[in-house]
This record gives sequence, C-alpha cells and structure tokens, in this order.
Amino acid sequence: MGMEQLFATRMERVRASEIRELLKLLDQPDILSFAGGIPDPALFPAADFDAAYSGVLRSSVAGSALQYSVSEGYLPLRQWLAEHMASIGIACTAENILITSGSQQALDYLGKLFLSPGDTALVGWPTYLGALQAFNAYEPNYDRLDVMANRDPAAIAATASEKGGKVKFAYLSADFANPTGETLGEAGRNRLLDLAEALDIAVIEDGAYQALRYGGEPVPPILSLDLARHGGDIEKTRTIYCGSFSKTLSPGLRVGWVVAASTVIRKMVLMKQAADLHSATINQMAIHEVARNGFDAQVAKIRAAYGARRDAMLDALAKFMPAGVSWTQPAGGMFVWVALPQAMDGARLLAKSLESERVAFVPGQAFYADGSGANMIRLSFSCADSAKINEGMMRLGRLVSSEI
Amino acid sequence: MGMEQLFATRMERVRASEIRELLKLLDQPDILSFAGGIPDPALFPAADFDAAYSGVLRSSVAGSALQYSVSEGYLPLRQWLAEHMASIGIACTAENILITSGSQQALDYLGKLFLSPGDTALVGWPTYLGALQAFNAYEPNYDRLDVMANRDPAAIAATASEKGGKVKFAYLSADFANPTGETLGEAGRNRLLDLAEALDIAVIEDGAYQALRYGGEPVPPILSLDLARHGGDIEKTRTIYCGSFSKTLSPGLRVGWVVAASTVIRKMVLMKQAADLHSATINQMAIHEVARNGFDAQVAKIRAAYGARRDAMLDALAKFMPAGVSWTQPAGGMFVWVALPQAMDGARLLAKSLESERVAFVPGQAFYADGSGANMIRLSFSCADSAKINEGMMRLGRLVSSEI
Repeated sequence: MGMEQLFATRMERVRASEIRELLKLLDQPDILSFAGGIPDPALFPAADFDAAYSGVLRSSVAGSALQYSVSEGYLPLRQWLAEHMASIGIACTAENILITSGSQQALDYLGKLFLSPGDTALVGWPTYLGALQAFNAYEPNYDRLDVMANRDPAAIAATASEKGGKVKFAYLSADFANPTGETLGEAGRNRLLDLAEALDIAVIEDGAYQALRYGGEPVPPILSLDLARHGGDIEKTRTIYCGSFSKTLSPGLRVGWVVAASTVIRKMVLMKQAADLHSATINQMAIHEVARNGFDAQVAKIRAAYGARRDAMLDALAKFMPAGVSWTQPAGGMFVWVALPQAMDGARLLAKSLESERVAFVPGQAFYADGSGANMIRLSFSCADSAKINEGMMRLGRLVSSEI
Repeated sequence: MGMEQLFATRMERVRASEIRELLKLLDQPDILSFAGGIPDPALFPAADFDAAYSGVLRSSVAGSALQYSVSEGYLPLRQWLAEHMASIGIACTAENILITSGSQQALDYLGKLFLSPGDTALVGWPTYLGALQAFNAYEPNYDRLDVMANRDPAAIAATASEKGGKVKFAYLSADFANPTGETLGEAGRNRLLDLAEALDIAVIEDGAYQALRYGGEPVPPILSLDLARHGGDIEKTRTIYCGSFSKTLSPGLRVGWVVAASTVIRKMVLMKQAADLHSATINQMAIHEVARNGFDAQVAKIRAAYGARRDAMLDALAKFMPAGVSWTQPAGGMFVWVALPQAMDGARLLAKSLESERVAFVPGQAFYADGSGANMIRLSFSCADSAKINEGMMRLGRLVSSEI
C-alpha cells in the first residue's frame, strides 16, 4: 500500500521550502552568512527568562503553569498586551486578544478562517515567504497588492471572481518588511484601508518587526488608522494585527498574539481549541514576567545593536557594490533588499558566492507569489558584527563586480 | 460590513464545545467535580522542571533554547522517544518521530493530511471529543468503528463512496480510552489491522493514556502489531501513533509526538513548518531533561495515586449506585463510563445534580459522532482523593436512585 495515496489532495500545496532547506546547508562555520532572518541569540535575555521560569515554578502558580489552560491565552499576558497595544495607538481590551504559538500560527489560522479553495489573497510582490507557505495549505489564488498602483477595486474583484472565488484579505508587513526592509507610510496605509473598504475585505497587518525601529518617527499601525475611522470602536474594524515576541524577547518560546474585533478573536479561539488546545502555559507566564519587568529595556538594547549593524551594512554596500546595483534603506527590522542588474540571477550568484567567496544570502525569487524577482537578493544584518558585515560585503561586491 | 461574511464556509464546522464551556462553569469551589479530564497538578514534577529550565538557561545551550529551531523537533528528545517507543514494542528511529504541540495538534495535522471534504473517518461510538473537534474542521463524514461487529469492509467503503468520499483512517484510543476507560485487547487490535488492510486505510492510534496502567498486563500497541506484520519495517506500516507528555509529566508545556513511517512524518514536518514553524524549543529541552532523569519514577508515582483513586471510585459506585446502573472497569487512565437507565438523560441529571447535590460530571452525548448516548455520563477520578470520591458518589447515587 502507499500511504501517500490517502493524503488529501490539498496537501500538494504544502511544499518543501527550498529556502529553509538552503538555510540548513548554509549552517557551516566557515561561511559568512547573511541568509537567516533570525535574531542574534547573544542578545536574548536568558538570565531574565531563568529568573522568570524559576519564579513561576517556585511559586503558588506552579501547578497552573504546568496544567492545561484556556485557549484564548493567559489573562495577565493578554492584559499586558492590551496596554502595550494602546502604547502604539491601538486601544483594545483582553477580549480582543488571542495568544498564538508565534505569529506564524496566526497566519495559518487566518488562512483557515478566511480562505476557501479558489479565493484570492492580496499580497505584496515580494512578501514574507512564511505567509505564502501558511496560506498555500488553503489553496488560494494570489493577486498583487500595490497600494500605489491605483488599480480599480472592481477589476480586482472581477479577477478573483474569474478565478473561482472572492478576495478575502490583503496581507502585509507594514513595518520593515521581510524581505524588503521597507515601511509603508501613513498615506499608503490609508490607501490600503480605502481599498479594503471598497472590496469589503479584511486586512492582515503583520507586526513581527514593529518594535525594531532604528531611526525616524513610528508610523501609526494600520489597525490604529482603522480605529480612527470608526471612532475608536475596534468591533467595527477590519484590520487584524499579528504581533510576536520572537524578534524582541525570544522565538524559542513560540508566543505571539492577534488583535482584532472580538467576532474574529472568538472564532480563532474555537479554531485554536480544536487545533492545539492552547499555547504553552508556562511560556506565556514566563514571557509575561520578562515583558512586564523589562520589555522596553530589552527593545532598547536590541535596537541599539541591530541599528549599528544596519548602518554597517548600508555603509559597506555603498563602499563595495558596483554601479547598477541598488538596495533599500530600511528604517528598522533585519533586512536589506538588493536589486542586482536585471540580467543577473540571485540563485546562480549564490552558488558562485558559496564556492568562491564563502558568503551566503537568500535569492529573492521565493518571496514572489508569481515567481518573478530572479535578480533580487535578501541580506540580513541581525546576526553579524560590523567587521563581519564589512568583510562579507567586500567579498560579495567583488563577486558582483566580476559578474557585470 | 460583517467580517463573518468573509469567513470560509468550512469554519461552520468549528463549533463551540458545549462540554468545554460547561467545564468552565463547573469551576466553583463548592462543587464536587468529576467532570474535568485533567491530571492532578499536585502530582506535577515542578521541582524537576525548575531544575531543568534553570539547567538549560544557565548552560551553553541557552541561546539555542530561546532560538528558532527545526520543525521536526529537538533531536535529543526524538532520540529519547525512539528508545522509549522501543521499550513499549515499537522499534523506530528519530526519523520516524515528529514533535507536536500536544497530541491534539497531531490530530489536527492528521485531519489536514488525510481528509478532504466528504471523506469518511471511522471513530468509536463514543470517542474522544477533541478528536471530533480536530477532524471537523476538514469536513469529514463519520462511520462507526466497531471491530467486534464483523461489518463487511466493502460495505463500509460503499457507504463512504455514497457520501462523496473515501474512508481515510480509523481513529481510536486503544488504552483506557476517553471517555470509556476501556482497553481494546490484542485480538481486537489485530481485527482492526485486518479491517484497515482490507480498506487500505491508515490507523491513528491515540496513546495519550498508554502509560497510565494500574493493573494487569500491557497490551501491545497497534503499531507494534503492525510492525510485527511487516518484519519490523516501520516504513511498511499504516499505523500512526500519537503520544503525549500531558498525562505523565505536564500538559502545560504542550509537548507531544507522532511515530509513523517516514513518508508520513516528512509530510507532517512540512505542515508544521507552514503552520507554526516548530514547538517551543525550551520546552522540548526541559521535557527531555525531566524525562531522561525521571520518567519512570514519575509514572510510578502517578500510577500509584490514580490507581488508588480508580479503586475508590469503583468501590463507591458499587456501594451507592442503584440497580439498573452499570459502569466500566478501567485498567488505567482517568475515567469511568456510566450507563444510566435508558430513560434517564445525562444532561438533565447534571442540571439537577448541580442544583441539589453540587456534584459535577460530563453528560455522554457529546462523545458520539451521531448524537446518541444521552443516558451515558463520564466520571473522572484523577483529581479527587478517596474521601471526596466517596462523598461525591454517595450524593450522585442518592440522586440517581431518586430518579428511577
């Protein structure tokens, strides 16, 4: 017998991520890697977590920490998050918050909640690869989200209808996006809300990098602009904000959250109950302890470190890249997005780079739902010091120059 | 606008669990509750977990513990589990094991992997409510799994075909099942494998309670019998074993596992990568520390405690229940399953019991995919001492007697 014959056809949409496979191969000590989009483990508040776990496990709540819990999440953490969200312009209550196992799980649940096979999701060209992976399981079509393109909403809806479904949501990372590092300004965010209102669709705002700003003024979250359009009544909003502690405190605890109208949250709570009951109780308690005691200090620490690395990378790119190569100027996050000359192929360049220069990065094509972007590459500066960044960009610039 | 209009139709299958809502209401201090199917938090190895988290966070692996990790799970834990599975008759390697966020997540992923809308899942009448909740999201039909009924496999397949799909798997908890407490014997397990081979379907063996035996000899797991049919080659088996640390070490860490042919595991790894990246790294490390240092001692401790409570409940039922009431004699687990006289309704009895006797239990109907079982009730003995069990059964027996 072949078990594969029993697998549901939709599972053909769950494909190996070539990028993630690639990242495993790149994990060799003699390679200067700018590939992985992960936080620097040297900056994790390990001592604070040690104190938090001990504090929980030596207290009267130890039994609760190790026990089953409610699907919506640990109430004190949801209350802390409500205050945190208010501090970035999103007034809400714990009833509007669901704790998820990282924001990746929120994307999976939102795909499950909104997408029937044949529906359309609007995403950037390029967009976060993990979002495409999460949504793919629900067999959507993709159309391009470009708020500056002035496309007629009726035409977008008609295209979706021709493909056999409806437009259900627009997904984007508004701040320091993966892979581009770019931030959508307030005017763009309002145009996005105009589009979403015209199409009567949801907006999924991925705030994974929101706290990691290294300069300039914060742009109000899309959900805060949506709130302003509805007199502050979150029940009338269409924006679903996905947050994460992975880039600020630790990804290894798998704690993220969703903020939205309670109609959305209640449905997601039922989904979570059926899918994994709840996120780990003890981790929610430990995150709550570390966050309430030192979230701002931890964010200040990583902003200073990553900000210096971003500066080092932008300086080194300017110094070593030949004419014909351009790149983004991220105000935060972990990534610089590089456009090679049109004729150059990022995947082929990576193969050569690994062979001759021992420098790693991620080719850009995987981030495009339509398979374009062959000449783009993503560089991450989060895990390298200035000297390594300078050396890496020198080598990469040398290779690119030799290819032109 | 109404966001609900955007929700995918399949989400109508994600319904509130009346039982779980009920359990929240029952959480009042003056109620003697035998409702919740949860471990006793007084028996959690909290000090061992405290040492494990501290050990991890004060060591050189602290950075890894807080970092992103691989979707298949922490290798040393998967290696420990391979040895543990061998000790219960299932020879396998780490390549055959995926770490999940509790075995509930395994059930969700298996529903996602196998079920297209209209397919049929074979389940017991009754069966674990959470399994029905997990599978419901994928819109299956259910047919009754009864290995002693000698139903013609061709007739089962024909029924599934009439309903617009195929039979994809049989699901059962073979040891001390929730809600019945019953264990399927070796002959029954072999008949199940015969049926699965005749239908060419998968078998999902839920081993959540497997370690909690209080008397008698262990029955070989279905996967071990399946292995024996194929010369020990796990790649040729059709049984997927779902394990959990929730009933032995702690449910609050959300660590479970799946053991199966590597074709199944590899597909599930891709699903997990897309759905939540991986289970919490630090919890996998902490569970590994506690398991390798004291799994057997912890299991011995809870077996002794729960075994005495099972005895107390069986004794009290015999003492206080009137003629016309019968119940199972579980060799392990957490539950006794009680059949009231046919005319009696478990839900109505609960309402009266809460009012006059302040005793709680779970009405049985929710555990039946076909809505039958109105005269059944589930009693859990895991969280009550002998005195409380005796008092509770005295009150319940008094009420039932007055209703006959």
